Amino acid sequence: MKDIVTKLHRAFNPRSVAVVGDKREMDYMWLRSLEHFQGKLYSVQIDEQELPGIEALGVKNYFSLLDIPDELDYVIVAVPREVAPKIIRDCIEKKVGGVMLFTSGFAETNTEEGIKLQQTITEMAKEADLNLIGPNCMGIFNPKIGLRHAAEQYYGDGGPVGFISQSGTYATFFSLMGAVHGIKVSKSVSYGNAVVLDSTDYLEYLAEDDDTKIIGMYIEGVKKGRQFFTLLREITRRKPVLIWKGGATEAGSRATASHTASLAESPLIWDALIKQCGAIKIESLDEMVDTVKALLYLKPTTGKRVGLAAMTGGQSVVITDTFAKAGLEVPLLTEKSYQEFATFFTIIGSSYRNPLDISSNLRSADNIMRCVDILDRDEMIDCVVLELSLGFLARIARFIPPFFDDLIEALARHRERSDKPFLTILFSGPTEDAAAETREKLLAKGIPSFPNFERGAKALNKVVDYYRFQRL
Amino acid sequence: MKDIVTKLHRAFNPRSVAVVGDKREMDYMWLRSLEHFQGKLYSVQIDEQELPGIEALGVKNYFSLLDIPDELDYVIVAVPREVAPKIIRDCIEKKVGGVMLFTSGFAETNTEEGIKLQQTITEMAKEADLNLIGPNCMGIFNPKIGLRHAAEQYYGDGGPVGFISQSGTYATFFSLMGAVHGIKVSKSVSYGNAVVLDSTDYLEYLAEDDDTKIIGMYIEGVKKGRQFFTLLREITRRKPVLIWKGGATEAGSRATASHTASLAESPLIWDALIKQCGAIKIESLDEMVDTVKALLYLKPTTGKRVGLAAMTGGQSVVITDTFAKAGLEVPLLTEKSYQEFATFFTIIGSSYRNPLDISSNLRSADNIMRCVDILDRDEMIDCVVLELSLGFLARIARFIPPFFDDLIEALARHRERSDKPFLTILFSGPTEDAAAETREKLLAKGIPSFPNFERGAKALNKVVDYYRFQRL
Repeated sequence: MKDIVTKLHRAFNPRSVAVVGDKREMDYMWLRSLEHFQGKLYSVQIDEQELPGIEALGVKNYFSLLDIPDELDYVIVAVPREVAPKIIRDCIEKKVGGVMLFTSGFAETNTEEGIKLQQTITEMAKEADLNLIGPNCMGIFNPKIGLRHAAEQYYGDGGPVGFISQSGTYATFFSLMGAVHGIKVSKSVSYGNAVVLDSTDYLEYLAEDDDTKIIGMYIEGVKKGRQFFTLLREITRRKPVLIWKGGATEAGSRATASHTASLAESPLIWDALIKQCGAIKIESLDEMVDTVKALLYLKPTTGKRVGLAAMTGGQSVVITDTFAKAGLEVPLLTEKSYQEFATFFTIIGSSYRNPLDISSNLRSADNIMRCVDILDRDEMIDCVVLELSLGFLARIARFIPPFFDDLIEALARHRERSDKPFLTILFSGPTEDAAAETREKLLAKGIPSFPNFERGAKALNKVVDYYRFQRL
Repeated sequence: MKDIVTKLHRAFNPRSVAVVGDKREMDYMWLRSLEHFQGKLYSVQIDEQELPGIEALGVKNYFSLLDIPDELDYVIVAVPREVAPKIIRDCIEKKVGGVMLFTSGFAETNTEEGIKLQQTITEMAKEADLNLIGPNCMGIFNPKIGLRHAAEQYYGDGGPVGFISQSGTYATFFSLMGAVHGIKVSKSVSYGNAVVLDSTDYLEYLAEDDDTKIIGMYIEGVKKGRQFFTLLREITRRKPVLIWKGGATEAGSRATASHTASLAESPLIWDALIKQCGAIKIESLDEMVDTVKALLYLKPTTGKRVGLAAMTGGQSVVITDTFAKAGLEVPLLTEKSYQEFATFFTIIGSSYRNPLDISSNLRSADNIMRCVDILDRDEMIDCVVLELSLGFLARIARFIPPFFDDLIEALARHRERSDKPFLTILFSGPTEDAAAETREKLLAKGIPSFPNFERGAKALNKVVDYYRFQRL
């Protein structure tokens, strides 16, 4: 087992957790988030007024970490900053597996007191070889064992995606938004100011983690740049790594300094290094979710030639513009395909050159699948994209009630049969809320959908670039 | 009154409408969409089997346009293409105000029959000076008089936005998506193959229309290019014109040929001309909705310096990156503002350099408004942006139930008081469906929201560029 695995195993897979300083003012957010934790849970709180609230949650409280009659694998610290050194001292004495400081108010405040306190805890932890996560962060999420940092997060089954985030918000949002897009986390960590453990350590750990097949990162700055990129280049050969760099503009760097005390780094150098290392560059949370989804659900291809089928003429124009602008190709089909279309395809109000406008050919799921099949079999095409417009589908379904279920079943069979990636664009129009149900039905059959052309096109292009780079 | 107004007035403001060829197979979509039409409605259908269905809708049917004992201001034609010349002939004889052909299957099919039929109807209409809209389109939407082309469209109150679309899909989608984003149409037209009346004519008409303050366009090709751009340059001085060119890529041009028989035109030339004419370039339906919303709801400014307030540290970094990348500036504030923040702002877990991370300062609506006010009064700032994260707001509201209503009231007062544009980013996380209600509440107070940083930043930057150009 690699050193880093030995080093971080207890913290990421704790059998016992203590929360220090949870309180009513925070709605006992830490203890509540650990409601389904499968190991032993302890509280440390010295304020007598908080004790009834903690007891009501069924958690035993102690007045000091040192009083807990058990080994502690992971400690969550939510005390005022001036108390942090005392808790760190206790953690060292207690030989905990890892300690995460939710506590903030350190170097990121750019105050003398904050900077000094950060130095103190950093030196203490480094000297004792203590696994300090943060400060100013949300720490570890390991759904399998119910180790969460927000009560809204899922627990039980984990997934194949590791997430490393300097921001607590994005660690939380990635898990929550990912869940509704068919993405589940294996393990994630929010690590804030990164005074002891940094992105490089977490990346190395998740690279060795068997449950983790894909790694997403939100980074504001790295402390050991050379080591990070050397490691990154090696890992991308085994697992896709997606990197979203916060502070990619001058003003944004000012914000990373105030947020996690990260130093400004040249966005150009970051872009170049991400590319050279074969990692995938990401620029927003939506892009992170979309691209991970494409990696998880699309069969791999190095080809950029897309066959596009839209449900109306206007959409056929715009899907084509959008995929072409994203870097993909929309070629003409083979003569064989055109001959096949000519045998059944209604061209009045529709067309099939590629893109397809199938508006006059929506009479049955079979008819739609015939179009998808021709695109799929065409040797000019590497990937097939089908627009599903909820409004039109609902209109058809009024006449042919089983239409939509038939279509999803047929798409599922298609997906199993074909070696080419297949994706859908689920266009909801004004009814955003109606999209969720259909998105879920599709995901249940392994079919990814994207909410608009641009997001689908960008995600597809990014994963094709990734597979191309890896096969060089 | 200008010639074009005289010419098109009857068609856009009909007191009588006839639908030719509606049928059960289409769920009587045309007659149903005219259910709330305020003028007189007639049907023309020769298929006896369709008559009970038409009568059930309460519409009187005739066997020929010529039999209708009334003048006809607007005729909707949904017959098979080979019947189109006969109906056009009747329209000419009947001296109708305008005729719209939903019928398709003309030059866009690239078939001999289609091309020939298109020539026939074009020549007939031109010779008789008949106002032919289309073919292969959805025609006019005038909500004020209940003239619609989809039963889902609103009726009664119209709004200030004219929309001209070569695609029926986008005419429909713009009206439906606009409605949920606080945008209502004055008059819109979908005009398909544009064989007689073209974009230039509709643009000229809406430029003269008093109800229309902003004009959006989705165009696949123009027939009279020089005339179009001369007109466009003149109109943008009076009304903002937003132009979305479909077929902006080589493959996309192939799609426009199959969709509306539009010829390929250089995207570079289009981009240059849009810019020179002071129009606003748009690249997607979302961008169209967002930018129109920004024009309608934001106070005008030519300044690009934004004051940004996010609800967490990660979001403060990313909102800054996103606005900076979109072309806006995120400057430091004045010393005066910093001194004011220092009197009350909790910096542990938060920061206020610009961007603001107000996570530790969310205790009350007053506290949030104090931050907004300082940004607003700062002479370095032209526009204020506030992130509203639904998840966090819900969490606060659990402790302080009136919190959210208080905040919306306070934001409404702020909006009235301030001369600077103010916008919100309504971040819904995984609960898209929850966003609609809050978006509506904000819109009811005149406060625009955008669903993510990128869409808000792009829309703001586009409207500032527009105001800058117009004041040159």
